[in-house]
Amino acid sequence: MDGVERAVRRITGNDRFARMAGVKIEEVRPGYARVSMKVEEKHLNSVDITHGGAVFTVADTAFALASNSHGQVALALNMSINFLKATGLDSTLTAEATEDKLTNRTGLYRITVKDETGDLVSVAEGLVYRKKDKI
Amino acid sequence: MDGVERAVRRITGNDRFARMAGVKIEEVRPGYARVSMKVEEKHLNSVDITHGGAVFTVADTAFALASNSHGQVALALNMSINFLKATGLDSTLTAEATEDKLTNRTGLYRITVKDETGDLVSVAEGLVYRKKDKI
Amino acid sequence: MDGVERAVRRITGNDRFARMAGVKIEEVRPGYARVSMKVEEKHLNSVDITHGGAVFTVADTAFALASNSHGQVALALNMSINFLKATGLDSTLTAEATEDKLTNRTGLYRITVKDETGDLVSVAEGLVYRKKDKI
Amino acid sequence: MDGVERAVRRITGNDRFARMAGVKIEEVRPGYARVSMKVEEKHLNSVDITHGGAVFTVADTAFALASNSHGQVALALNMSINFLKATGLDSTLTAEATEDKLTNRTGLYRITVKDETGDLVSVAEGLVYRKKDKI
Repeated sequence: MDGVERAVRRITGNDRFARMAGVKIEEVRPGYARVSMKVEEKHLNSVDITHGGAVFTVADTAFALASNSHGQVALALNMSINFLKATGLDSTLTAEATEDKLTNRTGLYRITVKDETGDLVSVAEGLVYRKKDKI
Repeated sequence: MDGVERAVRRITGNDRFARMAGVKIEEVRPGYARVSMKVEEKHLNSVDITHGGAVFTVADTAFALASNSHGQVALALNMSINFLKATGLDSTLTAEATEDKLTNRTGLYRITVKDETGDLVSVAEGLVYRKKDKI
Repeated sequence: MDGVERAVRRITGNDRFARMAGVKIEEVRPGYARVSMKVEEKHLNSVDITHGGAVFTVADTAFALASNSHGQVALALNMSINFLKATGLDSTLTAEATEDKLTNRTGLYRITVKDETGDLVSVAEGLVYRKKDKI
Repeated sequence: MDGVERAVRRITGNDRFARMAGVKIEEVRPGYARVSMKVEEKHLNSVDITHGGAVFTVADTAFALASNSHGQVALALNMSINFLKATGLDSTLTAEATEDKLTNRTGLYRITVKDETGDLVSVAEGLVYRKKDKI
């Protein structure tokens, strides 16, 4: 089993919060991940738009998969997220994380969230600390 | 009904995502909000610590309440969140949002998340755009 | 004179700080700007690497040009900047700002700073508020 | 010579950029620093307000002093800065950095910049990676 498989198992094997949120893995490669989430009733806030916490959760899952994909444990330190477009019921959000930079101790990732029309919903930069532990 | 009451109703009246996450309002005043969340099984990720998305959700709810508390609609533009301490089952997270600055068009909020021992779990800064619309 | 020319004049016409820092405009188009800075003795900190303030200044100048390039006054609200590589004397830093999203009232920009070898020195996301005033 | 003195010497002993910008150290203690900068002609941008790069530089100097004050080398990873008030000629900016959290490998700092009237000019959060090297 390679680093990518171990990362996928580590991050999503028993992730109860992502499961509750309905996040689905689409693709994981070293330094890259893509996940999706269909917006349902449960993701909505009081004004019937997708909750910021739901948008963050789909972005965070892509970030965790990409940053752990090298088979070394990565812990999130910071995420700066920008909210660009409101979405609602029946939208499909796709989050994609790509690696800006990887060093022995840190990794920086750009995460975009788009809706089914390809419009940007959110843009984030996430920074991890990489432990010495293998996954 | 004053701005605070209208904000509470607007933000939490029918917030299905925050309800699913189990976020509880503790206090709301103009420019301030405090909410809490008991960490349950459903908030955990695969390594049995509270999911980043759950920590974000409790922080975001405090942020939304504080920034809408003046009775004018506030939309989140950016949130920069730092993760400082891992928590797990049966922790209680308390998020507190205070106002750094309020202008006609923008508001900046500091949000801290602490566990039941008073340790910092997360520190965030959130920026909103304030629409002309009253809540 | 179009919006780009007016933006260039507004941002750099009499910018004493950017001039002191030695920032040079390379290219400006609507939603885009590229500037450069040769690292000299004056840009160094005590351990002989380019000062964070100098890296920020070159990034900020690209950001200001790109965000004002539509001929409408843009004011910086937030910049989240990540430092990825240390540079030193005689490096040439090139900052490039591209537009993630533009709305009537806000604009989001990604700014990369690279050295003369093409390595990433810094990655930033900058958010502006767009006033109604034309430049 | 203790950690604070060594940090002050390391950070400001030969900091040519901060010297050019006119940043003055006011106070440094473990986990804390305060510096100031009088706004002169050279700090202004084209519309006669203090350049974002100048505001960042004063904030960054307080951040570097506070994060290195424990006598262990600290490298900036991320800074998220919010711009709240424009200032101009003859303003005096005071930047204060306080420690949110310190671990073996990381440190998080809140940096505020105020003008001579006590108004907030800027609020930032800065994250460092702490090397094993002593200063």
